[in-house]
Amino acid sequence: MEILRVDDSLVCTRRVAGLQQMSLRILRDSKGRRHVAVDPVGARPGNWVFTVSGSAARYATGDFAVLTDLTIAGIIDNWTTEPGEGQQAVGGGRLSA
Amino acid sequence: MEILRVDDSLVCTRRVAGLQQMSLRILRDSKGRRHVAVDPVGARPGNWVFTVSGSAARYATGDFAVLTDLTIAGIIDNWTTEPGEGQQAVGGGRLSA
Amino acid sequence: MEILRVDDSLVCTRRVAGLQQMSLRILRDSKGRRHVAVDPVGARPGNWVFTVSGSAARYATGDFAVLTDLTIAGIIDNWTTEPGEGQQAVGGGRLSA
Amino acid sequence: MEILRVDDSLVCTRRVAGLQQMSLRILRDSKGRRHVAVDPVGARPGNWVFTVSGSAARYATGDFAVLTDLTIAGIIDNWTTEPGEGQQAVGGGRLSA
Amino acid sequence: MEILRVDDSLVCTRRVAGLQQMSLRILRDSKGRRHVAVDPVGARPGNWVFTVSGSAARYATGDFAVLTDLTIAGIIDNWTTEPGEGQQAVGGGRLSA
Repeated sequence: MEILRVDDSLVCTRRVAGLQQMSLRILRDSKGRRHVAVDPVGARPGNWVFTVSGSAARYATGDFAVLTDLTIAGIIDNWTTEPGEGQQAVGGGRLSA
Repeated sequence: MEILRVDDSLVCTRRVAGLQQMSLRILRDSKGRRHVAVDPVGARPGNWVFTVSGSAARYATGDFAVLTDLTIAGIIDNWTTEPGEGQQAVGGGRLSA
Repeated sequence: MEILRVDDSLVCTRRVAGLQQMSLRILRDSKGRRHVAVDPVGARPGNWVFTVSGSAARYATGDFAVLTDLTIAGIIDNWTTEPGEGQQAVGGGRLSA
Repeated sequence: MEILRVDDSLVCTRRVAGLQQMSLRILRDSKGRRHVAVDPVGARPGNWVFTVSGSAARYATGDFAVLTDLTIAGIIDNWTTEPGEGQQAVGGGRLSA
Repeated sequence: MEILRVDDSLVCTRRVAGLQQMSLRILRDSKGRRHVAVDPVGARPGNWVFTVSGSAARYATGDFAVLTDLTIAGIIDNWTTEPGEGQQAVGGGRLSA
């Protein structure tokens, strides 16, 4: 499972039926790369979360029929970024806390 | 799920039977790397899309028998590339909008 | 399976039901990146462990219903980091033993 | 699915029973890294192909019992490498056509 | 499937029950990173092997109940490292033959 930070919601009206009406979040990894995850726990922008991938991501939504490969599994209670972590990415740190 | 941009269609007459007649798209990630995805939503070159991978990619085509590991799951309504994102790749940015 | 080192426990009260009350550990790979794993073997901070991913991670917890994609599969008896390994990461070594 | 180029065949007499007598090909990605794939379509050295991974790779061989995680899914009709693509790898381009 | 070289055996007395008494090998990829794989073919240190990952790794052990995500699928008959390949890793080549 990976540690990511919630960046924003993703607006996407035209999508495959299998995603249903699940909330989609844009998450950032430690290199600033963006990923899209289904959010069954109600995370907000700025929250640090950890995500589950693969077929477990479908189960984690509470409905195996939801066609995701990445789901937020929990919101981390306390999290401190290490100095320099936001800047570690090749190409400039986009994870500026 | 990953955010990619549609680059082109892929012409491939000789393929395994399991792919059927599905439309194939070439997508580019933020580093300019190309990927091939099945497209059940009708994306066009230049569209930003997000993709689902793994076994969920087969379900997302609407037919589990389609042998893909990457399927376009939705077209993103609005998307703004951050300054410098197209140039972040090692080896030069090939994602020049 | 990957070789990682246990860093800390992860406190996360708000999580999906599928993770149950499993212990979560923060692990570090050789580049200093953090991952989250379920721990059914009782590893302690500083231990070198190897992890199993994918659907096998669910089986490895002893209960397939646990929604993880990374589980500690064993604690390595002896492990010596090679000189310079902690410093190999782009962006500075965070794996300072 | 990924785009790779066929490099050579792989000679491997001692193998697990699950691979049966399937042809194995060495493929190269855009960074020059080598991968091994089962080839049910009859690709030749120099061909650009795209591959399917995961459990779909087993189905793509036409026999789910074949234990592969990478299978050639099709031969691309036309493919032009972009200038400099063979040289994009960190450490020097090994994809010299 | 990936091409790796056998480095050593892994001694690990405390492990999850699902791994049974399978032999574990430490393998190195072309960047010198270490991975752990189950070995059903009897590879020796120095051998070049190729590995199968994902759920196929479980089948490849001959017993689906073995909880691995990486299994040695075959020993390569002949293999020549290309000049400079051992040195391609960022941070120094650890694959010195």
